[in-house]
Amino acid sequence: MREKVTGHLYLIPVPIDQNDNTSILLSKDKNIVEHLNYFVVENEKTARFHLGALNLHKPINQLHFEVIDQTKTQEDITSYLTPLLEGFDIGLLSESGCPAIADPGSKMVALAHQKNIRVIPMTGPSSIILALMASGLNGQQFKFHGYLPLEKEDRIKKIIAIENESSKYHETQIFIETPYRNQHIFNDLISKLQDKTKLCIALDMSSENEFILTKKIADWKKEVTPDLKNKPCVFLLQG
Amino acid sequence: MREKVTGHLYLIPVPIDQNDNTSILLSKDKNIVEHLNYFVVENEKTARFHLGALNLHKPINQLHFEVIDQTKTQEDITSYLTPLLEGFDIGLLSESGCPAIADPGSKMVALAHQKNIRVIPMTGPSSIILALMASGLNGQQFKFHGYLPLEKEDRIKKIIAIENESSKYHETQIFIETPYRNQHIFNDLISKLQDKTKLCIALDMSSENEFILTKKIADWKKEVTPDLKNKPCVFLLQG
Repeated sequence: MREKVTGHLYLIPVPIDQNDNTSILLSKDKNIVEHLNYFVVENEKTARFHLGALNLHKPINQLHFEVIDQTKTQEDITSYLTPLLEGFDIGLLSESGCPAIADPGSKMVALAHQKNIRVIPMTGPSSIILALMASGLNGQQFKFHGYLPLEKEDRIKKIIAIENESSKYHETQIFIETPYRNQHIFNDLISKLQDKTKLCIALDMSSENEFILTKKIADWKKEVTPDLKNKPCVFLLQG
Repeated sequence: MREKVTGHLYLIPVPIDQNDNTSILLSKDKNIVEHLNYFVVENEKTARFHLGALNLHKPINQLHFEVIDQTKTQEDITSYLTPLLEGFDIGLLSESGCPAIADPGSKMVALAHQKNIRVIPMTGPSSIILALMASGLNGQQFKFHGYLPLEKEDRIKKIIAIENESSKYHETQIFIETPYRNQHIFNDLISKLQDKTKLCIALDMSSENEFILTKKIADWKKEVTPDLKNKPCVFLLQG
C-alpha cells in the first residue's frame, strides 16, 4: 500500500483595502489557487469577493467554504483539517492582508503542523511590513503589539512603557487601533511622548489615499494633524 | 511661480532567493518601475539582475545607480536625494526581499521624510512575515530581534531571556542567523529551551526547497534534525 499523502495548506493573502477588487497574487500563486476546492476563511462573503477578483476558471459556488472566527472551538477547527488528511489542498484567507497574522487563522496553521501537513505561505501585502519599510525607522529590531489597552489610563502607561523600551533597545515599536479611536491615540502620543521621539503615521496603506509620514514629536506638534478618523492606521515609534 | 514638485521614493522588493530570476512585483508596481531612471541599491550587480528579470522596456545601462551600504556616510546618502528634490522619482532596492527592513536603505527613507519626500512601499516577500504566517505561532504580538549575539555565552543568555519574555507576554520571538552558524543556534535552542516551548524553523523561504516546521522542543528532540547548514533560516519561538 502506498503511503497516505496529505494535502497542503496554502496561506493566501488578500488586499489590505477591503474594497480593492484587484488580484494581489503573483501569477504562480494564482495558478495554485486555480486548483483549490476547499477554503477556510475568516469571512465567507469577503473571501468570495476576493476569489472572484482572481477570475478563476470555475464557478465560486462550486467551492467549499468553512468559516474560522472567534466563535469556533478547537474541535470545529480540527474538523476543517479533514480534506487535508484525505489528500486535498486547502486555502486559508483572512479578512485583510496576510492570513494567520493577527487573526484566528493561526489556530488552523498550528493544528496543521501537529498533523505534519505542509504549510505554504504566499507573498502578499502586510500593512505592518509596508509601514515599517516606509517609516525609515529601525527595521533590524522591531516589535508589533497589536492593539493598545482600551482604558485611557492603561493606554498611556503602555505608550510610555513602549517609548522607554524603544529608547533602551533602539527598537521600533508598532501598534494598531480600532479606526474610530485613532484620533484619541494620536492625541495621547503627541501629548505624552518626548519631543525627540520619532512617530510614523501610516494611513490607508496600499490604497489611493495612502499617507505615510515620520516626524519627531516636536515637529508633529507644528504640523496640521492628518485626518485619522475611521481610517486604518499603523502607528510606529522609535524613542 | 509654481511650487517645486519633488519626486517619490519607491521601495521596490526583490525575491528572497537571490538566484530567483522571476519578477515578484505586482503588475501595477512593475508599471511604476518602468518609468524610473534613478535607483539607490544595496548592491549594483544584484539590482541589475533583478531589474533585468522585469524585462523593462529600456536598456539597464541607461539607468543611474547609487550604492547604499555600511561604508556610506550620512553626507553621501543625503546627496542621493538630489534627483528627488529635482522632481525625479527614485527606486530603492535591497539585496533580498523588502528594502529598508534590516538594511541600510532605512537611512535613505529617514532622510526622505525630513525633506517631505513621499515614500511609497511596494508589496513583496518578507521572510519574517512569511515565516510568521506559516508558523502557527502568535501573530498578534511578536518581536523581531535581527541577529543574536555572536559569543556563545551571550547568545545562550539571550535565548533564555527571549523565551522568558515570550512566556510572560505570549509573544512570538523571531530571529535570524548567519547561515553557516544555524546549526550551532539550533543545538543551543534544543538544549536550552524548555520542552513545552514551540520552535519554528523556516528554511529556504520562497524557494523550491522551502521547509517550515513548528514543533515543541520535546518533539524536536525526537525529530531527525533538518539540515540547516548554509541555508537562510528564520527561527521563531513561543514559550
